[in-house]
Amino acid sequence: MANCQPVPLNKVKISDLFWSKYVELVRNTVIPYQWEALNDRVPDAEPSHAVTNLRIAAGLEEGEFRGFVFQDSDVAKWIEAVGYSLQSHPDSELEAAVDSIIDIIEKAQQPDGYLNTHFTIKQPDKRWTNLHECHELYVAGHMIEAAVAYHEATGKKKLLDIMCRFADYIDTVFGPEPEKIHGYDGHQEIELALVKLYRATGNERYLKLSKYFIDERGKEPNFFNIEWEKRGRYSFWTNTVSKKPDLKYCQAHKPVREQKSAVGHAVRAVYMYAGMADIAAETGDNELMDACRVLWDNIVSKQMYITGGIGSTHHGEAFTFDYDLPNDTIYAETCASIGLIFFANRMLNIEQKSIYADVMERALYNNVLGAMSLDGKRFFYVNPLEVWPEASEKNPGRFHVKPVRQKWFACACCPPNVARLLTSLNNYIYSKNNNTVYIHLYISGEAEIELENGKLILNQCSRYPWDGNVKIGVVLESISPVSIALRIPSWCRKWSVYVNGEEVNPELVNGYAFVKRVWRENDEIELKMDMPAEFIWSNPNVRANAGKVAIQRGPIVYCIEEADNGRNLSAIEIDTTSGLTIETDKAVLGEGVIIKGKGLRTIDDGWQNDLYKPCEISKKEVEIKAVPYFVWGNREPGEMTVWIRSLN
Amino acid sequence: MANCQPVPLNKVKISDLFWSKYVELVRNTVIPYQWEALNDRVPDAEPSHAVTNLRIAAGLEEGEFRGFVFQDSDVAKWIEAVGYSLQSHPDSELEAAVDSIIDIIEKAQQPDGYLNTHFTIKQPDKRWTNLHECHELYVAGHMIEAAVAYHEATGKKKLLDIMCRFADYIDTVFGPEPEKIHGYDGHQEIELALVKLYRATGNERYLKLSKYFIDERGKEPNFFNIEWEKRGRYSFWTNTVSKKPDLKYCQAHKPVREQKSAVGHAVRAVYMYAGMADIAAETGDNELMDACRVLWDNIVSKQMYITGGIGSTHHGEAFTFDYDLPNDTIYAETCASIGLIFFANRMLNIEQKSIYADVMERALYNNVLGAMSLDGKRFFYVNPLEVWPEASEKNPGRFHVKPVRQKWFACACCPPNVARLLTSLNNYIYSKNNNTVYIHLYISGEAEIELENGKLILNQCSRYPWDGNVKIGVVLESISPVSIALRIPSWCRKWSVYVNGEEVNPELVNGYAFVKRVWRENDEIELKMDMPAEFIWSNPNVRANAGKVAIQRGPIVYCIEEADNGRNLSAIEIDTTSGLTIETDKAVLGEGVIIKGKGLRTIDDGWQNDLYKPCEISKKEVEIKAVPYFVWGNREPGEMTVWIRSLN
Repeated sequence: MANCQPVPLNKVKISDLFWSKYVELVRNTVIPYQWEALNDRVPDAEPSHAVTNLRIAAGLEEGEFRGFVFQDSDVAKWIEAVGYSLQSHPDSELEAAVDSIIDIIEKAQQPDGYLNTHFTIKQPDKRWTNLHECHELYVAGHMIEAAVAYHEATGKKKLLDIMCRFADYIDTVFGPEPEKIHGYDGHQEIELALVKLYRATGNERYLKLSKYFIDERGKEPNFFNIEWEKRGRYSFWTNTVSKKPDLKYCQAHKPVREQKSAVGHAVRAVYMYAGMADIAAETGDNELMDACRVLWDNIVSKQMYITGGIGSTHHGEAFTFDYDLPNDTIYAETCASIGLIFFANRMLNIEQKSIYADVMERALYNNVLGAMSLDGKRFFYVNPLEVWPEASEKNPGRFHVKPVRQKWFACACCPPNVARLLTSLNNYIYSKNNNTVYIHLYISGEAEIELENGKLILNQCSRYPWDGNVKIGVVLESISPVSIALRIPSWCRKWSVYVNGEEVNPELVNGYAFVKRVWRENDEIELKMDMPAEFIWSNPNVRANAGKVAIQRGPIVYCIEEADNGRNLSAIEIDTTSGLTIETDKAVLGEGVIIKGKGLRTIDDGWQNDLYKPCEISKKEVEIKAVPYFVWGNREPGEMTVWIRSLN
Repeated sequence: MANCQPVPLNKVKISDLFWSKYVELVRNTVIPYQWEALNDRVPDAEPSHAVTNLRIAAGLEEGEFRGFVFQDSDVAKWIEAVGYSLQSHPDSELEAAVDSIIDIIEKAQQPDGYLNTHFTIKQPDKRWTNLHECHELYVAGHMIEAAVAYHEATGKKKLLDIMCRFADYIDTVFGPEPEKIHGYDGHQEIELALVKLYRATGNERYLKLSKYFIDERGKEPNFFNIEWEKRGRYSFWTNTVSKKPDLKYCQAHKPVREQKSAVGHAVRAVYMYAGMADIAAETGDNELMDACRVLWDNIVSKQMYITGGIGSTHHGEAFTFDYDLPNDTIYAETCASIGLIFFANRMLNIEQKSIYADVMERALYNNVLGAMSLDGKRFFYVNPLEVWPEASEKNPGRFHVKPVRQKWFACACCPPNVARLLTSLNNYIYSKNNNTVYIHLYISGEAEIELENGKLILNQCSRYPWDGNVKIGVVLESISPVSIALRIPSWCRKWSVYVNGEEVNPELVNGYAFVKRVWRENDEIELKMDMPAEFIWSNPNVRANAGKVAIQRGPIVYCIEEADNGRNLSAIEIDTTSGLTIETDKAVLGEGVIIKGKGLRTIDDGWQNDLYKPCEISKKEVEIKAVPYFVWGNREPGEMTVWIRSLN
């Protein structure tokens, strides 16, 4: 397998029954809303202070720094999202808004290239003294990603230049040379950002610096321990003397190549793994690639929820251990699933195996999409698989699990992350190498793809994820053959491929069906995937799901809600032998598929004040109605569960 | 119903196959061990500092106060336990140890009667400034209980006099008069202690003061809020400015008579309810008694584990809400179940309904007994119903659930509480009024009970809890009739009573079978209770137990352990239609009954690296072996669960 390249964002147009509305929601609602939020103009929401901080650092305003130490990153993620959005939809007003903020960023940059409003305004003498806790390089990383995206969208270089100056300065501060700091950030992000900057500029200095951060991490003696001693063991967050750094929390407990299990803060972990994959791709470092494979395997075969959520505990927003996947005290942060998509996407560009795209799809259609309300105005940070609203309110161990999406968060990492993912969704559909195009996601629209043998135009059309039939119009401006590799999703066990109506028997390699030929005007591929509604079981080692099943159809994981099934969902058992029926539902979904099944419900008549009794319980037959997980919590707050007790 | 009186401790001798060994364990192992611990002489255990603190406060030693602000209470609970123990087993050496510590306590008492080593040594100017957090009256309460118990055992008045002086002083500090503090303690305990002091001395001042604390609690404007403002919102525990007191945590959110649900810290709650019942009993206050009934009902029909554990969350060691009884993130503190027994015992003395004794028995034989290791040297603080040792180690939300009993605790409330309960176990077996004796617990031994019609001697003999046949020899020194009321436990649905071999048909009132007659030399009652091993279901509103059953036989709740059933207990389903068999087991229990059932185990062959799959799981038949809950964790650490998935 050869490395793949992504297809440039502006060469892929999405016009998809399912996704277009979400992409437009982000463009028309989320991005403008976030701009208002960054400027503290949203009534009844906590102010962000992010733009004000930049204006103060730029000398345009007097005042104190406010917000989190990493507040600048919200501006960065917003610019990045706008950068992607502008590539598909030019918008001069929006571009003017970004230019105006870039002008402020330029003024906020210090003469030596440093850029960070917290340290510039509040603690100018404390720069680089607490990498472990203060996210300086993390913020820089997000600003670099923004600069690259905005440059790609507009060709304007100002922010890119600002960030090159900052990166050049960072390179004078960190590195193996004795006079430099032999350190790295507490929150990984700079690593993958520097690779983007390298790709945008061709300047190898950035690639080398990224590799340095990756390789230095977790070496002994440990940088975070040394730094902690140096700053008098002081903690930025508690403002007192603190315990020794928890090195696992930020994946610095051992060198990254020796890490075999995903541990610690889930977002940091997957951002780092994505950076590792980037370095492996750029340098051909097989040892590093092997480390990525091991960590990937550990996540997807031991520590991932069926929704593509990761992070089993809110303590440290972290991974716990193999098969520990509690549904009710879960974390499954939105950003972590987005990071998992980043990781998957990079792995896929290195080796074209459908498992990467399968997980990407799983996280995208379930955990990530479910984080946003159907109107695009509210977000989940934590994405539970089981909710009992009274417990969220009254059991402190479940306070973090909210039964309704929140407007904005004091720590507003998730909504901008959703925005930048959905505005760049066109990036995840295809990749290419030599004369092969891989189709990873079935999202309708047109793509222009340059191959060695010429330009290929693909026109995908489907009702995916509600229907498994995908038609792909193919035009190739060449008389030489090229391959189109269609991902056969892991959920699909019966499929067939037709070219111009005639069945072909494509070779299946690593989960991709390769259709190779000389394509002519009006050629059409049709991929027919059986998409039955199915019961899914968990590996028996997942204690939390013992005796339970989930319902999945295509990439969509379903859940049952109180609104459809009454209160106390734990009283329901589903009959896995009696089959599931599908229905198109307008009420919940607008357009989409809901699933019905049969089962029993335990009756609580006769229990009154009894808490424990020897007599067996009575049950009645019920119809069970399941809705896609991603729409849960869009009606009255109520109970929800993905895993349903199985009658059989 | 008339109030009952307990039968004096020294009139009830326990010689019971089941309990004697535990009582002796406490006498021969726990009490001496605790004395060593209090004196900081246990190797490898955290020092208690408790005796040293007293010596410093007494001027016998130089040094700093160390340990918790309530450290004195450990000494108090130990003296109380010794007091009970001496009533059954005089021991001059032990008595000399107590006398020596009482001499120190006397010297530590301040001229005005005040006694508390923390405030005397460390913060003499801060007395009574932070009732909410600093447990001053709580510690006083425990010392009063100790004084009463030791006085009853030995007739020695020194400690009783010390505590009367302290209580008299407290009465000058707290009360409705304008110059006094209109407050009460953050941790209830003084309330029930003052009633004991009243009963021991006849001084109504103590009863009145107790009632004052009960009635004042939760009134508006709230004392804890006022106090918090007065001390500059300072928190003793965090040493900084703190949030407003959480009034529910210490049951001060509304007047006690208006409280309808058990909320907040479970130990504080049940200690308070016990005190409320005491006041209701002594004053005939029906409104207060009604409040007790409502709170009792809420606990036992909505918030109690099948083991008699209470407290569903470790956050605040607290109750959460109705039917929220998670088995894995549970708290169920040992002290809370002991407090529940105190509450039950007091309710039972007011109204003789078997529900109170049923709960007392449930908590005693399961949660409380299980807290102690079989060798009496290690204790649980938290008593889970489901344990996965790897989760206890690696999932922070379950760190508080220990898979093995601990030697001693930095906060050592539980072991001394177990000791004082088991040394006074003879107090809980009988109570009496006029010419009726109630038998609440089936524990073998002899009791001498003074009734209006003369002295009754009862001689209980059984293999309870392993066997439901109880023989009671009866001797009455009178020719007038008296009633013996035998509790028919709620777990028993088939029973019969014989007098001298002939079946009688006693009247069943409130769960007690009344056998009334003129008793003659060599009369014998035999109570035959069917004691089948049974499956128990939970109220369907308990989400955590949906689809699961527990096993109970007599008062003993069973559990399954990894040692007998292999790892991953969640993979096991028990067949509730195929019956349970009982066996006497020597290996685990010495002498006792284990239970075997049939079921299926999910096989994880064929899953390898898969986490989710549509194919149905395969199962194999297995024999399931259950052991009494109270013996869990006495072998290799491993998984344990009380609630088992039901196959049917």
